[in-house]
Amino acid sequence: MQTTLKEIIDLRSDTVTKPTPGMLQAMLSAQVGDDVYEEDPMVNELQEKTAHIFGMEAGLFCPSGTMTNQIAIRILTQPGDEVICDRLAHIYNYEGGGIAVNSLASVRLVHGERGRFTPQDVLENINDDNVHYPRTSLVALENTVNKGGGCYYTLDQIAAISKVCRQHRISLHLDGARVFNALVATGESPAEYGKYFDTISVCLSKGLGAPVGSVLLGSHQLIAKAKRMRKLMGGGWRQAGFLAAAGIYALDHHIQRLSEDHIRARKIAQALQQLPVVEEILPVDTNIVIFKLSSEKTTQDFLTYLKEQQILASAFGKDKIRIVTHLDFTDAMLERLIVVLQKLPVLATK
Amino acid sequence: MQTTLKEIIDLRSDTVTKPTPGMLQAMLSAQVGDDVYEEDPMVNELQEKTAHIFGMEAGLFCPSGTMTNQIAIRILTQPGDEVICDRLAHIYNYEGGGIAVNSLASVRLVHGERGRFTPQDVLENINDDNVHYPRTSLVALENTVNKGGGCYYTLDQIAAISKVCRQHRISLHLDGARVFNALVATGESPAEYGKYFDTISVCLSKGLGAPVGSVLLGSHQLIAKAKRMRKLMGGGWRQAGFLAAAGIYALDHHIQRLSEDHIRARKIAQALQQLPVVEEILPVDTNIVIFKLSSEKTTQDFLTYLKEQQILASAFGKDKIRIVTHLDFTDAMLERLIVVLQKLPVLATK
Amino acid sequence: MQTTLKEIIDLRSDTVTKPTPGMLQAMLSAQVGDDVYEEDPMVNELQEKTAHIFGMEAGLFCPSGTMTNQIAIRILTQPGDEVICDRLAHIYNYEGGGIAVNSLASVRLVHGERGRFTPQDVLENINDDNVHYPRTSLVALENTVNKGGGCYYTLDQIAAISKVCRQHRISLHLDGARVFNALVATGESPAEYGKYFDTISVCLSKGLGAPVGSVLLGSHQLIAKAKRMRKLMGGGWRQAGFLAAAGIYALDHHIQRLSEDHIRARKIAQALQQLPVVEEILPVDTNIVIFKLSSEKTTQDFLTYLKEQQILASAFGKDKIRIVTHLDFTDAMLERLIVVLQKLPVLATK
Amino acid sequence: MQTTLKEIIDLRSDTVTKPTPGMLQAMLSAQVGDDVYEEDPMVNELQEKTAHIFGMEAGLFCPSGTMTNQIAIRILTQPGDEVICDRLAHIYNYEGGGIAVNSLASVRLVHGERGRFTPQDVLENINDDNVHYPRTSLVALENTVNKGGGCYYTLDQIAAISKVCRQHRISLHLDGARVFNALVATGESPAEYGKYFDTISVCLSKGLGAPVGSVLLGSHQLIAKAKRMRKLMGGGWRQAGFLAAAGIYALDHHIQRLSEDHIRARKIAQALQQLPVVEEILPVDTNIVIFKLSSEKTTQDFLTYLKEQQILASAFGKDKIRIVTHLDFTDAMLERLIVVLQKLPVLATK
Repeated sequence: MQTTLKEIIDLRSDTVTKPTPGMLQAMLSAQVGDDVYEEDPMVNELQEKTAHIFGMEAGLFCPSGTMTNQIAIRILTQPGDEVICDRLAHIYNYEGGGIAVNSLASVRLVHGERGRFTPQDVLENINDDNVHYPRTSLVALENTVNKGGGCYYTLDQIAAISKVCRQHRISLHLDGARVFNALVATGESPAEYGKYFDTISVCLSKGLGAPVGSVLLGSHQLIAKAKRMRKLMGGGWRQAGFLAAAGIYALDHHIQRLSEDHIRARKIAQALQQLPVVEEILPVDTNIVIFKLSSEKTTQDFLTYLKEQQILASAFGKDKIRIVTHLDFTDAMLERLIVVLQKLPVLATK
Repeated sequence: MQTTLKEIIDLRSDTVTKPTPGMLQAMLSAQVGDDVYEEDPMVNELQEKTAHIFGMEAGLFCPSGTMTNQIAIRILTQPGDEVICDRLAHIYNYEGGGIAVNSLASVRLVHGERGRFTPQDVLENINDDNVHYPRTSLVALENTVNKGGGCYYTLDQIAAISKVCRQHRISLHLDGARVFNALVATGESPAEYGKYFDTISVCLSKGLGAPVGSVLLGSHQLIAKAKRMRKLMGGGWRQAGFLAAAGIYALDHHIQRLSEDHIRARKIAQALQQLPVVEEILPVDTNIVIFKLSSEKTTQDFLTYLKEQQILASAFGKDKIRIVTHLDFTDAMLERLIVVLQKLPVLATK
Repeated sequence: MQTTLKEIIDLRSDTVTKPTPGMLQAMLSAQVGDDVYEEDPMVNELQEKTAHIFGMEAGLFCPSGTMTNQIAIRILTQPGDEVICDRLAHIYNYEGGGIAVNSLASVRLVHGERGRFTPQDVLENINDDNVHYPRTSLVALENTVNKGGGCYYTLDQIAAISKVCRQHRISLHLDGARVFNALVATGESPAEYGKYFDTISVCLSKGLGAPVGSVLLGSHQLIAKAKRMRKLMGGGWRQAGFLAAAGIYALDHHIQRLSEDHIRARKIAQALQQLPVVEEILPVDTNIVIFKLSSEKTTQDFLTYLKEQQILASAFGKDKIRIVTHLDFTDAMLERLIVVLQKLPVLATK
Repeated sequence: MQTTLKEIIDLRSDTVTKPTPGMLQAMLSAQVGDDVYEEDPMVNELQEKTAHIFGMEAGLFCPSGTMTNQIAIRILTQPGDEVICDRLAHIYNYEGGGIAVNSLASVRLVHGERGRFTPQDVLENINDDNVHYPRTSLVALENTVNKGGGCYYTLDQIAAISKVCRQHRISLHLDGARVFNALVATGESPAEYGKYFDTISVCLSKGLGAPVGSVLLGSHQLIAKAKRMRKLMGGGWRQAGFLAAAGIYALDHHIQRLSEDHIRARKIAQALQQLPVVEEILPVDTNIVIFKLSSEKTTQDFLTYLKEQQILASAFGKDKIRIVTHLDFTDAMLERLIVVLQKLPVLATK
């Protein structure tokens, strides 16, 4: 957008990546068709491939993770039902109030640990069967938890929550915006996921580096319902195969490399730890670094300083900053960032 | 419902009262008409009278406080907006998830003190203008707060919150299910309320002792919108004047006597304080007594014991009990209750 | 409302009736309770009695026929479904757009004969299973048809439509606002109705003369769902037994007498037929007379003339008038009306 | 998808086209960014360019015309409002019941001439201000009308409808899925459109030949609201610039050539006219040919015959067929189609 001597280092989100040459080549050579007629071969391949990876029956390619999450909530609830999720959940905080608008469902907000909760939390938040209360019909997890600083659930933890949900005939959805970060961090197999969740939203345009899109996974029956909802929400697109081809390429080439993002994130945290102005850093489990500064003013000054050095990060609430590492953030950039941090001038702390 | 030697003492809620002979006589002699045509003289009188009491322009008589609250939220929000209320609020907890179903609005839950919050709480919960967040368009207070044990806001506190709302172009609604209890307790004038709120829901079938109904108050313009919503929700009733006549009678005769309910509630609290099994009693500010017992089992045993003595109270969560005093709860009944409490056998505390 | 020498004859609707002395006495002596706790004996009796009459399992007493109809649509559809009804249907025309607002359902409007349609009409309006089309999940009949001039379905016609619905797994709802008028006209048994419909809305405040309320009928399971919806819509009322008692009285005393209303309606039609200004009169099958005049101007003049004689009727569209006979319309009033009609001055026809 | 000697001729819709080499090159060289941050230069350029063409302030790029239409209806109505549109309108027939689901709005269906209606039709369908009726707040036109066989409105006709809408404070939306076909056919200027409509949906993936997407146009204020709705509906996508670049290319290169599609469509109609089995052909005004056959059986046989010759067309209702010409349908294909039609065997007509 502007010509500068130094390249911009954009650490606001892992959504800002641009296709690699290989991915662009895959897009160019894509064989496409009309996906509303279910005739786009790339879209069909992406859907099957993603479903297979997570041990689920079927998939549906959508323009965003918000759409896949919102469709999942719609098909797993009735108007007047209640969704149990953490108060830090993306579906509650960053999807425009969609749970209410799209599904006419209420929320019960769990106060988990960095956005993760337990089977006991689920149990304590299920409503009695009484006309005064919404019917509890869905639990939604997020893995990794964005607002929790990229922390993750292990398969054992997921299995335990799933068991409680099944016992109470409550559905379980996963917002897997960064599920591959969790999988790479734990070394666990995605194929197990299908056993525990009714639906999974897998995002291709975050750590995986594809330009657009998420895949919703579920049973054949649920995905048939999801397809109706996608149409209603305006997500029925035509030759989406160009984007699906990028997604396929990402699944083939960009999963294992996420560990590099995790390493770089930890190195950033180490550099931040040296700064007196940084009051607290959330543990860095994957590719997200959230740290707290002493005041709103300091936070703004910190961001301004970075920006002057062509480095972008996100304010996260009033006195926190979020940094996200990704495919377009290299070791050279990391070095530059560390130098910039070391040179941070003294900031007013009030 | 059943013939017993002792009369049942029903302290589950102040909604259980039955019309006094005077109220029944008022109902009998009511001149009625078709309220859908706005031709029921009793309904029209009730609406004007209630609006006048609270210093507002117009009123709308509805079958329940849930309907008046839900209509208020609908006419003061757009789908996708967010309502700030306390996590203890009736509109969030006991109206079936109606905020989401009826208004497609999200909730931001304040953790106030016994359900009451401050201007600062409002300020901290207003969303930035950003497509990721719902638009904050409504703050809702409850006075008195049922789940907070009948505590109340003073006019000064209300005025301060109203000021912040006005500054941020956010509407302010009052769930006044028990607003007369607050007014009697503070000795403040209802006529001031109209200055601070956009809409007020006033319930006639709780402490006031009318059989059915609540009145929604607001400007002429808002009440015209409310009338559309009432029709849509099925609240357009015909010869509702019989019920309105009871409401008028209640406004004329049953307000000042609420102080008796408050005195009796405090006496109950004093008796409870003597019981070792009672761990904590919320301060008794009006006609509600909420107390905590040592366990879920003890709570159930306590309720069972009362029931055997023909006394009904409500479980309130797992280890709390709520007692509500009202028009049909006399001094004689109070004495009987105190004796029953004194004779409480030792209950297992685990 | 105003002192006049002549009593007002109100033929705008059968909703304008006021309780007879017998009904008022029944209301006065009603034993009531809190219906939210399901403890109002009159309400419970009314629900059971109505369900029994129509051969259904359970009932739910609500403040209006709009509420019972709208609840039925909600519990028999999902958001995004489609309801087949006649373009004259009350649920489409007079319930504030509630099908869309309350159920998020689309409408497919049949062009029936005076609001009545056939199994073939149903068949032709069922959507294919395709993401572009709403899912057809409900057919709604109205009996009698208000906008069709009070015409009715016979049981055989109902049975045939029901059969088609069952074959296509589509639910069938009856808006029975004036179902007793149909039953009295056909001499058929209400007990058969339960076999054909999933839900029935029976109105007590029209021909039956009760002040307020309708009963929704269905299976135990559907009525349990309906109770949740009633709460959400604000229809959970307290000591509604006063109104239920009037309803019980109406069922006991006011059904057979509907034939008198039908006779009087036919006599009015005969008087209208003598008037040159009346261009067309819909066949009078029950208690509704709809007639067409030559222009909008003539229609207004006709209504004004009647009003000057203390007689009220309703404009029905731009060039039609509707007259409805009912419990409060006596033979003496009929005679007065006929004289007034005979004295109608020449009205401009353009 | 299958190996055949002859290339498939796909005339089911103009949505099936694939990018030309020039368009593909434009996609490849696109400079992209994160559109959720409004930083995708291609998306921004496309939005401004399209707005400029139609004389409107701003635009919003979305994944489908269903999304742009549905967003327009949402931002121009309130829940409980009513939309006037033709009974043939795409928004009513092919968007999954979205008017009800997304906007909670009712429909008033005009019976226009091939889907086009007049200012008088609008006037006759505006509801009186009455709680029984939805509030009429939006009129929606479609230009060209798909289900009407591609017929169009002239600017004069649009201006007259717009005038009536403005007089009654009713918004006016254009579903311009094929608006360029109308413009090319009439030779009128798109720049005039902005004066008459509040919002316009312009589709890039039909006649224009782009792979994915539509642009919603309106004032800055409306597009700001639209952006919120797009996020809620899951249409907030990331590096959408690849698709936007195709859209820009289409606007630059594929508008005038639409006249070729219109000529080919007329030639197809001429060939169909020779066939005894074809009972009626709708006038061919642009690129759509709808023709009626004698029975459902004949229609199926006709489509099967075409398919055996590698030619695809769409069943349109039970006894009609729709053929749509487009960018990927060449003169050589036209010749082949005509030969195939000439060789049509005698089909059973019952």
